[in-house]
Amino acid sequence: MNGAQSLLQTLVDAGVEVCFTNPGTSEMHFVAALDQQDGMRGVLGLFEGVVTGAADGYARMAGKPACTLLHLGPGLANGLANLHNARRANSPVVNVVGEHATYHRALDAPLTSDIAGFAAPVSAWVRVSESAGDVAADAAEAVRAAAEPPGHIATLILPADTAWNDASGPAEPLAVPEPGAPDDGAVAESALALMSGEPCLMLLNGLGVSEAGLALASRIARATGARLLADTFIARMPRGAGRVEVDRVPYFTEQAEEVLAGTRHLILVDTKAPVSFFAYPGRQSVQTPAGCAVHQLTVPGQDTLAALSELADRVGAAPFEPEVSALEPPGLPEGPIDAEKVMRVLGALLPEQAIIVNEAATSGITLHTHTRCAAPHDLLDLTGGAIGMGMPAATGAAIACPGRRVVSLEADGSGMYTVQALWTQARESLDVTTVLFSNRKYAILQIEFMRVGAHNPGPKAMDMMDLSRPDLDWVGLAAGMGVPGMRAETAGEFADAFARSIATPGPYLIEVVV
Amino acid sequence: MNGAQSLLQTLVDAGVEVCFTNPGTSEMHFVAALDQQDGMRGVLGLFEGVVTGAADGYARMAGKPACTLLHLGPGLANGLANLHNARRANSPVVNVVGEHATYHRALDAPLTSDIAGFAAPVSAWVRVSESAGDVAADAAEAVRAAAEPPGHIATLILPADTAWNDASGPAEPLAVPEPGAPDDGAVAESALALMSGEPCLMLLNGLGVSEAGLALASRIARATGARLLADTFIARMPRGAGRVEVDRVPYFTEQAEEVLAGTRHLILVDTKAPVSFFAYPGRQSVQTPAGCAVHQLTVPGQDTLAALSELADRVGAAPFEPEVSALEPPGLPEGPIDAEKVMRVLGALLPEQAIIVNEAATSGITLHTHTRCAAPHDLLDLTGGAIGMGMPAATGAAIACPGRRVVSLEADGSGMYTVQALWTQARESLDVTTVLFSNRKYAILQIEFMRVGAHNPGPKAMDMMDLSRPDLDWVGLAAGMGVPGMRAETAGEFADAFARSIATPGPYLIEVVV
Repeated sequence: MNGAQSLLQTLVDAGVEVCFTNPGTSEMHFVAALDQQDGMRGVLGLFEGVVTGAADGYARMAGKPACTLLHLGPGLANGLANLHNARRANSPVVNVVGEHATYHRALDAPLTSDIAGFAAPVSAWVRVSESAGDVAADAAEAVRAAAEPPGHIATLILPADTAWNDASGPAEPLAVPEPGAPDDGAVAESALALMSGEPCLMLLNGLGVSEAGLALASRIARATGARLLADTFIARMPRGAGRVEVDRVPYFTEQAEEVLAGTRHLILVDTKAPVSFFAYPGRQSVQTPAGCAVHQLTVPGQDTLAALSELADRVGAAPFEPEVSALEPPGLPEGPIDAEKVMRVLGALLPEQAIIVNEAATSGITLHTHTRCAAPHDLLDLTGGAIGMGMPAATGAAIACPGRRVVSLEADGSGMYTVQALWTQARESLDVTTVLFSNRKYAILQIEFMRVGAHNPGPKAMDMMDLSRPDLDWVGLAAGMGVPGMRAETAGEFADAFARSIATPGPYLIEVVV
Repeated sequence: MNGAQSLLQTLVDAGVEVCFTNPGTSEMHFVAALDQQDGMRGVLGLFEGVVTGAADGYARMAGKPACTLLHLGPGLANGLANLHNARRANSPVVNVVGEHATYHRALDAPLTSDIAGFAAPVSAWVRVSESAGDVAADAAEAVRAAAEPPGHIATLILPADTAWNDASGPAEPLAVPEPGAPDDGAVAESALALMSGEPCLMLLNGLGVSEAGLALASRIARATGARLLADTFIARMPRGAGRVEVDRVPYFTEQAEEVLAGTRHLILVDTKAPVSFFAYPGRQSVQTPAGCAVHQLTVPGQDTLAALSELADRVGAAPFEPEVSALEPPGLPEGPIDAEKVMRVLGALLPEQAIIVNEAATSGITLHTHTRCAAPHDLLDLTGGAIGMGMPAATGAAIACPGRRVVSLEADGSGMYTVQALWTQARESLDVTTVLFSNRKYAILQIEFMRVGAHNPGPKAMDMMDLSRPDLDWVGLAAGMGVPGMRAETAGEFADAFARSIATPGPYLIEVVV
């Protein structure tokens, strides 16, 4: 058994089942080991942003890490933006990055770079194996580091000779630490606040927006009159009929301040106090209202369900049932298609247990409203603001959840970042329906340009936010990568195409010019 | 004048004329300043790998830096692979990376990351401006740092409030240091070796493969009997009729060792001693033959032309003329198209002063042979091994050299990495003819898989090097981004399409299935 084989066996023994990859020469022994290893599926991406974004989407739905296999520093570098998003989602990911052989590194060959340097900003754990005998134990530690609550990026750098030299065998899986116990004092403090009679708001994320977390929070809210709010962007949130619906902190900070105004006690559940996404001249970045007391119930990595359960007991929430959404799909719209009508069609036709990946940016504004009473589903957001997450994450989610339809809501600007994901969807015959909102501009930037006080953009500035000249033909792009599709002009056409797509195995793309 | 305006004026005053960008909210004031600034052209890329690769191609042809404008850590991260290539090309590039406002950084908003950490592995110079008043002086230093011989990556990180706060004005351009003077001892040592009567080989790169450098090296070779060889991958090399033709160190290390065998004196001209691109089990990485003396004539950043000139004098090369290629274009091939016939068409039809960007990988093997006696042109290689450089660099080269046809030789595997570059070529109506070799596999990996001793790949391994299932339709992909094209089946069709393309303004793509 060589080092590469010891790696693969260790990963499989630790429960890692999927390897998203774009390998190179220095990873060929790992690819050979993949061949011989039962229980590990290799999925090729034509760009590493697809690979890491798929690993993020997979982790959010599977609740455990996939591994990536990346080619040296540049391969990792290409995947960093989606690893940034994965880090912000607390998604567990094990990166395996090939490196030049130990004795080759110092020679400064063209592909030599500081791989650990590239990895550091996104990784909670980085290690370079220095011999084939170390690989298995290092891999077991990488899986543990990734899986440790709330989920982390672990990056294992493997010089090529650690792959081809002899190793003694795989390493035993390491026990993953349990989530940290809730802090009794924090629970008591939150309970006191909730029973104070003063305006309370519970801000939720992480386990606080799991189905169980939302149910507990809803009971607490009904018992105490507290308001519930979730962070603006959430890694995964169960929604639709039978689930507790919670509004989000608005993206635009003026609106966020309005929503948060009047709060006397802010109880943070698996999250931190809200701040604006960007800074704006003359406006505060901190959104917590002046005079509001902040109570940290749990931080990411703690057992938030236990904390909420204890809190529910303390505030007498036992008799209260969670307030859940009814199944009341909206009616099908008619007339020329627009972004809101797309969302109404989704609300009406979404199949049970669909997975929505939302990177539709400005076109997605009414998604929450119209899918609130749809069939139960999961919603995955862009958590780190690095665009290009949507189509890769949809790809990974589909691999994690065969049998569930993935609906990838994508904008033209962000879609172009990792457009190669469509090819992987075609190759793997994934059940992904992409709705591509083509507004032919970076619409959010045209809004933000005004909001940051940079008034009256001239033609050169506008040009930098404009995606026309030429218009992108998304149906043509998808076809070029093997994904069938059509452009919908009316709500009826869109609904028909959407219904047909969710009933037909494999990927499909519907372009909506908005 | 605000900080953003002081930045733009300083850059323009220092000779920076082009800003390749994909900006975000934190860069909106810079975009606004771009609008008001004469002398700075803004070029939008739909992905940052396009932006940085274009800056590399621009720098190689313009001989001076463009700037990039990138959105926070993830925007920079997406551009890192092509910055790695630019670093290996010694291309001067000034990155301007937006950052959260100084007071916003500590709040850990979703897009917060360690930007300086991302920048460090590729940058010779990194600075964070801490106030609007610093921006102009920091920008002037960034341009100097980038332009300092042999050329570097300089990364200037600008918090958003340094853009919108008041600044006093632009900074004066700083003098760029001259190349370092040649070392007399090194010249004398090289001269002694060359006159020893023992087998000498001059290995060239950088200024040593400029038109003047090659001419001097050729005279020295003719005077002394020394052999000339250039590094495997070169940032920019003048080729074709009237230029000195020099063979390259072969990519495959077995062949490199053969070519280098018997060398008694290796004279390094603006480069370092050759090492294999990758390590292979049981094979040495160092390619310098045993017992060969190594003489370092110059290193990158030194005045190699002065050193070669002095060396030519010392070895009595004055009477010798450089040996240059004649203008003898090959005849046009016939029959079904293949990669070699493409190269013969290029040799036959290449227009004067064309710029070839070669990322054709295995399909490009016969390029050198068939274009040696073509019309004079420049050839740009992938210097850092990070695929996805070709189409962006072609884009930047076309912007640097209006009126010159750029021929972008691209493979399907590498082309998919930064396919978005085609859109920028369409938007800017750039004279780029892309020849897309579609072999539907990572052919080099199938070769390397065997060479690293990972024998008998099974279906899972082969699948990771295979680009079929589904086949990419490159004509469709190009059309989807506004670039017209066709698929050539015969040599005649290819020659006709190529001739038509070079006679027609704007971009064109010819797919060749090989």
